[in-house]
Amino acid sequence: MRHQSRRRKIAVVVTYRGAYARLKTFLQAVRNHPDLELQLIVGASALLEKYGGAVNVIEADGFEIAARIYFVLEGENPVTMAKTTGMGIMELATVLDNLRPDAVVVIGDRYESLGIAAAAAYMNTPVVHVQGGEVTGSIDEKVRHAITKLADLHLVATEGAAERVRRLGEEKDTVFVTGCSSIDLAATSTKDRTVDFPGLTQQYGAGPALDLAAGKYLLVMQHPVTTEYEDMYEHIHETLMAIFELKMPTLWFWPNVDAGSDKISKGLRVFREKYQPSFVHFFKNMPPEKFYKVVVNSACMIGSSSVGIRETSFLGVPSVTIGTRQAGRERGPNVMDVGYDRTEIVRAIRSQLVHGPYTPSTLYGDGRAGERMAAILADTQLKIEKRITY
Amino acid sequence: MRHQSRRRKIAVVVTYRGAYARLKTFLQAVRNHPDLELQLIVGASALLEKYGGAVNVIEADGFEIAARIYFVLEGENPVTMAKTTGMGIMELATVLDNLRPDAVVVIGDRYESLGIAAAAAYMNTPVVHVQGGEVTGSIDEKVRHAITKLADLHLVATEGAAERVRRLGEEKDTVFVTGCSSIDLAATSTKDRTVDFPGLTQQYGAGPALDLAAGKYLLVMQHPVTTEYEDMYEHIHETLMAIFELKMPTLWFWPNVDAGSDKISKGLRVFREKYQPSFVHFFKNMPPEKFYKVVVNSACMIGSSSVGIRETSFLGVPSVTIGTRQAGRERGPNVMDVGYDRTEIVRAIRSQLVHGPYTPSTLYGDGRAGERMAAILADTQLKIEKRITY
Amino acid sequence: MRHQSRRRKIAVVVTYRGAYARLKTFLQAVRNHPDLELQLIVGASALLEKYGGAVNVIEADGFEIAARIYFVLEGENPVTMAKTTGMGIMELATVLDNLRPDAVVVIGDRYESLGIAAAAAYMNTPVVHVQGGEVTGSIDEKVRHAITKLADLHLVATEGAAERVRRLGEEKDTVFVTGCSSIDLAATSTKDRTVDFPGLTQQYGAGPALDLAAGKYLLVMQHPVTTEYEDMYEHIHETLMAIFELKMPTLWFWPNVDAGSDKISKGLRVFREKYQPSFVHFFKNMPPEKFYKVVVNSACMIGSSSVGIRETSFLGVPSVTIGTRQAGRERGPNVMDVGYDRTEIVRAIRSQLVHGPYTPSTLYGDGRAGERMAAILADTQLKIEKRITY
Amino acid sequence: MRHQSRRRKIAVVVTYRGAYARLKTFLQAVRNHPDLELQLIVGASALLEKYGGAVNVIEADGFEIAARIYFVLEGENPVTMAKTTGMGIMELATVLDNLRPDAVVVIGDRYESLGIAAAAAYMNTPVVHVQGGEVTGSIDEKVRHAITKLADLHLVATEGAAERVRRLGEEKDTVFVTGCSSIDLAATSTKDRTVDFPGLTQQYGAGPALDLAAGKYLLVMQHPVTTEYEDMYEHIHETLMAIFELKMPTLWFWPNVDAGSDKISKGLRVFREKYQPSFVHFFKNMPPEKFYKVVVNSACMIGSSSVGIRETSFLGVPSVTIGTRQAGRERGPNVMDVGYDRTEIVRAIRSQLVHGPYTPSTLYGDGRAGERMAAILADTQLKIEKRITY
Repeated sequence: MRHQSRRRKIAVVVTYRGAYARLKTFLQAVRNHPDLELQLIVGASALLEKYGGAVNVIEADGFEIAARIYFVLEGENPVTMAKTTGMGIMELATVLDNLRPDAVVVIGDRYESLGIAAAAAYMNTPVVHVQGGEVTGSIDEKVRHAITKLADLHLVATEGAAERVRRLGEEKDTVFVTGCSSIDLAATSTKDRTVDFPGLTQQYGAGPALDLAAGKYLLVMQHPVTTEYEDMYEHIHETLMAIFELKMPTLWFWPNVDAGSDKISKGLRVFREKYQPSFVHFFKNMPPEKFYKVVVNSACMIGSSSVGIRETSFLGVPSVTIGTRQAGRERGPNVMDVGYDRTEIVRAIRSQLVHGPYTPSTLYGDGRAGERMAAILADTQLKIEKRITY
Repeated sequence: MRHQSRRRKIAVVVTYRGAYARLKTFLQAVRNHPDLELQLIVGASALLEKYGGAVNVIEADGFEIAARIYFVLEGENPVTMAKTTGMGIMELATVLDNLRPDAVVVIGDRYESLGIAAAAAYMNTPVVHVQGGEVTGSIDEKVRHAITKLADLHLVATEGAAERVRRLGEEKDTVFVTGCSSIDLAATSTKDRTVDFPGLTQQYGAGPALDLAAGKYLLVMQHPVTTEYEDMYEHIHETLMAIFELKMPTLWFWPNVDAGSDKISKGLRVFREKYQPSFVHFFKNMPPEKFYKVVVNSACMIGSSSVGIRETSFLGVPSVTIGTRQAGRERGPNVMDVGYDRTEIVRAIRSQLVHGPYTPSTLYGDGRAGERMAAILADTQLKIEKRITY
Repeated sequence: MRHQSRRRKIAVVVTYRGAYARLKTFLQAVRNHPDLELQLIVGASALLEKYGGAVNVIEADGFEIAARIYFVLEGENPVTMAKTTGMGIMELATVLDNLRPDAVVVIGDRYESLGIAAAAAYMNTPVVHVQGGEVTGSIDEKVRHAITKLADLHLVATEGAAERVRRLGEEKDTVFVTGCSSIDLAATSTKDRTVDFPGLTQQYGAGPALDLAAGKYLLVMQHPVTTEYEDMYEHIHETLMAIFELKMPTLWFWPNVDAGSDKISKGLRVFREKYQPSFVHFFKNMPPEKFYKVVVNSACMIGSSSVGIRETSFLGVPSVTIGTRQAGRERGPNVMDVGYDRTEIVRAIRSQLVHGPYTPSTLYGDGRAGERMAAILADTQLKIEKRITY
Repeated sequence: MRHQSRRRKIAVVVTYRGAYARLKTFLQAVRNHPDLELQLIVGASALLEKYGGAVNVIEADGFEIAARIYFVLEGENPVTMAKTTGMGIMELATVLDNLRPDAVVVIGDRYESLGIAAAAAYMNTPVVHVQGGEVTGSIDEKVRHAITKLADLHLVATEGAAERVRRLGEEKDTVFVTGCSSIDLAATSTKDRTVDFPGLTQQYGAGPALDLAAGKYLLVMQHPVTTEYEDMYEHIHETLMAIFELKMPTLWFWPNVDAGSDKISKGLRVFREKYQPSFVHFFKNMPPEKFYKVVVNSACMIGSSSVGIRETSFLGVPSVTIGTRQAGRERGPNVMDVGYDRTEIVRAIRSQLVHGPYTPSTLYGDGRAGERMAAILADTQLKIEKRITY
């Protein structure tokens, strides 16, 4: 009888605010599944207020936290990024040794994810990789595929990604196209599109009141490209000048902690002090449900976040993707790519404003990925031995 | 003019005795190359006397050591193996930050290698991977291909390996077949095959005097399979009983430090105390030059070390490979595969003894890999940006 | 009403076999106290089979383990000892952050203890130090008093120790003379002095059967002195030669993990192979209850362990203390001090054999320290602010 | 002959901007001493631009850096502070193992200093402690005296400090009153008191031009008290409101990285946004020579930095010291102590403004400490064995 068998313990490690948004429906599905037990580990920048203190949102959402681990080194440069990876492994090894999960779930291509996958692999714990097989630029490209090679089960967003994972030598029966669970939350959060946050700017940013009516504002989210560490300051400057030229109300989100994020932050501060652009509102964090409402109503999303490709595709929001960070990732027709050049950026945004909303696409999912992923974890055989298929 | 350009600084990290043997001719070639500067980093078990203190051999060979890093956690179990990986990253990040090499060379598929590759990748230092593209079982299989995905330049041993690295999505012009530099040392060390080590057993092992004439003794080297951590003790027991049944003079080398090596060591100790087999001589370490003389004269090499596939192939020494650790690796006709079963092992060794030496093969190299590798490092463009080729 | 108030959570960190023996009655008293909740953390060599796997004994005794932390670096030299201290802090910080105790108890003067005290102090958790105020040589002397300065509550063994802690500038009402809880276990374990371990030597050591009748054998326990790291091998050699000269049945316990323990181990192994002294029986570990029976029946305890001063004093066992490790520690009349010199050692042992058992002393406690300590933890105000009293 | 003997290698670890200011003349004296060789290690917040990037100033001053070590964990809370201590030990152990100094110099009472002292002590390297024996509140008080107990040589600022170190059980011939080397730099930097920094506010802060004429402005430097972690935000708020009430031109320096510094920073930012006080100029860092000119000309120094006690005493600058952080430290008549209360703070500042400059005192040194300290390091016997004197 099912209820008598031991439930599988599924450890999920959330290390930054974006990961939580992407995993939320999956986490709920695991928690609610009769055959699964969720062991939620919160660490790295997800614990730090400076980066939005995702941990508070997670607790407010009613999740029980099995362990908290601090392991981000100060510096936001390549040395400390490497050391953070190492320290993440050390911390997670202790936690896994004490929690003894049946599988560990990692998402994406960040350095913490590589550390988590490595720790779990060495501890003979099956590694489940979410969002593998995608293509981008930068160090993320190396890390994502390295995690694929360490992982035992692959829950990917698109058919293209699945094909790539298989070509990387993974066995066919370990690769599942589930769609991306970030789409789930984007879908449910935008059923009601009304953005009515009393005191939004008071709470989350500075500047005059903001009209959040659909199509009235831009949204910027630009993350560092760690392999272009030296040029980061100039890259962000181009985006800033483009926005300054457009003079439209703009919501600007601070970057993730990464090598280079200090340079981006510095760029933002210098810009703010110099130009005092009252039409730009800066945000550190926002609960994902509110965030998606803000996305769906924006006239255009700009920057280098994967949100500008994944979620905007599903929501039909025009997107301008800057630089190399997302290069190679599958994208819908709503995305225009430009270089680190203010003229190009301005021209693309104007073109998107003219175009307006796109037809929504299910390229990255249909909004039901989370439960699909949980079901696979409950039903699939979990193993740790594998061999390249060629 | 060549002499005016800055020499490329090549950091090589040696973490265990076997790695030094495999890299020695390469290290010499880098040191002697007019356009290269060697930064030799010695760490992990290569610093520990308990595992043969490779550092002493390295210094005796005249190499200058740029940095020493201790980072092996006690325990020899999956938790400490993971933690060691993490700590290796942290240590290496500091060292690389202080040495600022132009490229970092890692070899093989051990956990330290993954840590090194990750640290270098995050520090935007080109990663050169030696011995990628091979196929085996166990966690090594995961780690080897993960390192390939983190690496920027691939110096592989065989055509088969090169093909596999390319199929993993690496660009063609970053993959070079150089042969394996371990063959270099095997080749030069065995030009004179005389094994005349006065006091060999006094120095390195216990038991009655050993006749090292060609074909008169067996050689065993069995490493743990970390994904079979729980069964290790029984696995080694089968090999021990096989050797006990054959009652031939045997040189037995202690295992590497790895999850499970304590279980193997325990197996060896219990066996030694119970059976007091005067014909088995245990060794912790041996300078590689002596080691290869001992290999080339052995009647058969037994166990799970890659030496039993690579070097024996070149030397034409009969080999019996036990279990899953080397499963999938390309092999010459001199290798017989068996399971963890004393009867199978005994039968295979007897069959090899009847056959005697094999025709040498250059499958894993022609003895000139080291200088070829150094030349590539001097002449090839070093870069850190890459993207999967499909 | 008492049962409604929250129980104080008392975290105790056990890092080696000796610490468990010393704390066992205290741990029981905390577990049984209605106002206290025990959070037992087991780490370092207490987790390693190589050092006696104290964790197994702890679990067999019915204690629930709140967290396990591995943090011993391989090497047993000064570098790795320092790194182990650092890693202990890192690990413990995570554990304390997750367990949130009201106080942390550390014992003695080992490097792990310093790390624990530092971690707790920085985390604003009151630090309770057991066995402060004593005097010895070596690095222990530095570390013990440094821990006193980090600690908020002092549970000391003797009046002399209490006076020393107060002179170190600690406030009087934070210093309590409880006696040493190691005496508790020595007391209860030796109520019945019969040593009747069927198959003792089979289980725990090698060699011919051992007559454990009172007064028929010697007991040796010599730990490294880390500040004399370079001379360790010769120091142990003198003790070995003294025992070899006496040719009495001898139980020899392997040393703790410390810088230098590899040198002692090597000394023991070389000696064993060279002299094959059938009358010396080597032991890695023994449950403390059995150990104390073995102590009380021994003709003389020899070496540098504090057992040779504390417990032997209470048990009236003649003791010969070698070298600087225990120099300065208060001692009863049963202790003779000698240098690292085989002639001195032999002469002292012979003199002790002539003397025979001493009158028991309560210098280090009366056998009821554990419950006294627990009561203080339940009743005393716990605070973290303090200032030197002069 | 002197020049033939090997020079003593003196490792000095600088971990934050204030430490460099305090040690600069000592570092110069070591570098210039014929019998000493300086091994300058720069780590922790001294490497981070966010905290003033002291490393750039150090290099601009012509010092060669022997090693850089990153080890500050993000979070600025008790957990990460503890972990940073641990990681500092791990990093420093590697560096010391590679540099092999004859002595390690640590200053003060910060967590990095405890880690450095512990690492050096375990590595059998003599520890030289600068600024021991002083009295303050907070965790610093615990850590300072713990470092004294780990240290082998004590270079203290005042006779009172020397007496305290001796009472802590240190041998008399290891305690030297040298004065505080921070006074040296204060003395030389203020020989010419002219503050004429073209573009000071452009370079270092925001706001309208600042008149730096003597007596025309206030200077604030308030660091967190880690044991009052929870109340930090309110504490800083009181100081802010006091300054806001006074409405005098004010130079405000950001706090050190410590548990609580994020709360202080947040307080500063909220205040700045809310009140937009054009008369307050915020600074992250300033070369010490400029800083001391700014101090000597200030009408009053306010906060909890030890500068408000040490250097102001020598410079005769009125000082208002807030809260518990400096409680107990010896002070001259120029210091007024107040609680975390805006009314008290305002009243004390006004009283100091009325009083004006004080007669300079040599309580903390005469301006020649650096060379005195170097001479002691060159001439004193360095040893690692010690025992408490009572």
